[in-house]
Amino acid sequence: MVDIEQANKTAVERMMSARPILKSVATARDVIPGMHENLLLHAGPPITWERASGPMRGGIIGALIFEGRAANAAEAEALVLSGEIELSPCHEHDAVGPMAGVTSPSMKVYVIENVTHGNRAYSNLNEGYGKVLRYGAYSEEVIAKLQWMNDVMGKAIADALDANPEGIDIGTLLAESLHMGDEGHNRNKAGSLIFTTRLAPLVVPVVEDSRVTAEILRFLAENALSVLNPVMAACKAMADAGHGVEGSTIMTVMARNGTDLGIRVSGLGDQWFTGPVGQPAGLYFPGFTAEDASGDIGDSTITETAGIGAFAMASAPAIVTFISGTPEDALNATLEMYEITETEHTRFTIPALGFRGTPTGVDIRKVVELGITPRINTGIAHKDAGVGQVGAGLTRPPMSVFEDALVAYAGRYLM
Amino acid sequence: MVDIEQANKTAVERMMSARPILKSVATARDVIPGMHENLLLHAGPPITWERASGPMRGGIIGALIFEGRAANAAEAEALVLSGEIELSPCHEHDAVGPMAGVTSPSMKVYVIENVTHGNRAYSNLNEGYGKVLRYGAYSEEVIAKLQWMNDVMGKAIADALDANPEGIDIGTLLAESLHMGDEGHNRNKAGSLIFTTRLAPLVVPVVEDSRVTAEILRFLAENALSVLNPVMAACKAMADAGHGVEGSTIMTVMARNGTDLGIRVSGLGDQWFTGPVGQPAGLYFPGFTAEDASGDIGDSTITETAGIGAFAMASAPAIVTFISGTPEDALNATLEMYEITETEHTRFTIPALGFRGTPTGVDIRKVVELGITPRINTGIAHKDAGVGQVGAGLTRPPMSVFEDALVAYAGRYLM
Repeated sequence: MVDIEQANKTAVERMMSARPILKSVATARDVIPGMHENLLLHAGPPITWERASGPMRGGIIGALIFEGRAANAAEAEALVLSGEIELSPCHEHDAVGPMAGVTSPSMKVYVIENVTHGNRAYSNLNEGYGKVLRYGAYSEEVIAKLQWMNDVMGKAIADALDANPEGIDIGTLLAESLHMGDEGHNRNKAGSLIFTTRLAPLVVPVVEDSRVTAEILRFLAENALSVLNPVMAACKAMADAGHGVEGSTIMTVMARNGTDLGIRVSGLGDQWFTGPVGQPAGLYFPGFTAEDASGDIGDSTITETAGIGAFAMASAPAIVTFISGTPEDALNATLEMYEITETEHTRFTIPALGFRGTPTGVDIRKVVELGITPRINTGIAHKDAGVGQVGAGLTRPPMSVFEDALVAYAGRYLM
Repeated sequence: MVDIEQANKTAVERMMSARPILKSVATARDVIPGMHENLLLHAGPPITWERASGPMRGGIIGALIFEGRAANAAEAEALVLSGEIELSPCHEHDAVGPMAGVTSPSMKVYVIENVTHGNRAYSNLNEGYGKVLRYGAYSEEVIAKLQWMNDVMGKAIADALDANPEGIDIGTLLAESLHMGDEGHNRNKAGSLIFTTRLAPLVVPVVEDSRVTAEILRFLAENALSVLNPVMAACKAMADAGHGVEGSTIMTVMARNGTDLGIRVSGLGDQWFTGPVGQPAGLYFPGFTAEDASGDIGDSTITETAGIGAFAMASAPAIVTFISGTPEDALNATLEMYEITETEHTRFTIPALGFRGTPTGVDIRKVVELGITPRINTGIAHKDAGVGQVGAGLTRPPMSVFEDALVAYAGRYLM
């Protein structure tokens, strides 16, 4: 008989003892397992063009234009429909991407190494706010910014990290930023400033032109989500360390592609359990309403999976100005998540709760038994390809994915 | 008959509508009113060498060595006792300095301009932790660091601001940092990161040697108090805007020199009301105890005077690991200060209290009537010259200074 309690303890202890270090920036084709010239990675569980949401289609179109494989949306769509382009979840390649999460072979990616257990995780570079690929925009300015990020900023950070192989400890950065009003998912203001100031002295000596250095440092500092992507890859590296523990009911992946939300469970191998995504409720930018919103999308829920994000809302009372609610709601969000998690994080603590650890390791048994699904903080994309972000808010996964996973667990371990 | 309520409203509204902008870094002798070659400014109300505390004497000795006026402590002491050197409070020259606050003619200072009312305020550069002049240390390494700060870092920031005359808005920076776990006095982690990232793209183009740029950016980023001095000068510029309102009972200066604490009141001109300093209670660094502590010292209580610092503790629950107490104590500290203040700040808000403004404008009438003195967060200096910081903690001013001020007020306005 499998010892579920022990298995869950092992899974969560592995997640918490992981030490995710940003080691380098490299080109996706050179480092991501299984990446090839005709492969595009995307957020969430597997999806086809036919079922893909607007922002996911927009991300795919933009990535193919960026790669020089298509000149416009029609050519990109034809190329995908021809079968020449393969679509595969980031999560099936040790990677994660925010919102559409489309990652193509030429894109630079952050390489995170969990130095405790040796596994690696990857994420693309963050584009900032406004018209951006991850929200499905693909205009000329979007592609030009991606090129600058890849060739100029990405190269500079790559060179800086090559010259400083000790890297940047993203786990420590996260622990600090949770004491500075971040929750690590939708609010990464402090973390992005820490990240910028750690990188600055490393970037300065490797860039010739000081105007370029200034431009890079300004871009990193003014983008309050600069650190989101390395944080996501760090969370992926931590969550992966807890994956594959025989008999464990701990959720190790939760991700959305705009159409389906999928989870994976530590003791259930690489099987996805999927269901329809929710519609986030939140605050919309001027000129937009809930009518404009795409379904929930992105791999950024790897943060909640690792014990931060919406689970650490009590650390980030100021976030309510961005995603709606009151500071009391923020406290209650964290308190509720203790109900469905295995333990309290040993490294990530919340000053406002007397330095209690964040709720960590969603146990699918508790979710089903208590009828409480995990909370998700998220950006909201426009439902159509080519537009971009329209707001930010809160949502939850469908209960059915936890029920399906529990049925599969029973079939595997209890029959 | 004077309308006290209206006068206090005017004083506090002037404080809150002040917009303190960091405009430049310049040499003290060139910008501070009344500065001359034989003048040393110091923290707190007026003090003589004979009555000066250990850290104050250490700061004076170090400043004279830095200026090349003395080769060692004995020479410095002889020079001061000869009467050649004049000692004068920073506050009597539109300036403020943390801890001993000793500011000499050659030192670079931040120049803050309140662009609403046109007044200026000044503060020296922050040395970081460890053996530092402001805590009374004056060894060779202390002087060498001061020289580097003055000639290299100070010059770079001066050149950077000269090339960017719009400056850096310290009021906005403070408002942001209060949403990121700072209280602006003993915790300036977020503010210092914001400051570093705002300065970085301005400093990069004005420094030739990229190794020097990297060194400056690393120094600013690793010093969690980098922004304390511009913040103090910003608070001075704000508090001064509320000073001199006929009939007002609002405190506009509170400062300590290690022996005496002094306050000034808006409607009572430049008169100091002084009494003995308290002994901070707090947490000591390994190897030190309360036996080693100097009396309360420094102009940094200009932060509490302007409505932040201990008054904004509810914003900074993580600070209790540094100055003692619990996160609940931090909330209660702010709640208590609402009792003795005129209003809630319109720009500085506290997310954890539902974005309530910080308690702003200490009314000396309320202090005496309720028997509640202002709270102070502070670093703790060693009582002997030449040692440095031994801890951090909490204290209060003596009630007598508020009683004396109230008696003077009655004598002036009510007789």
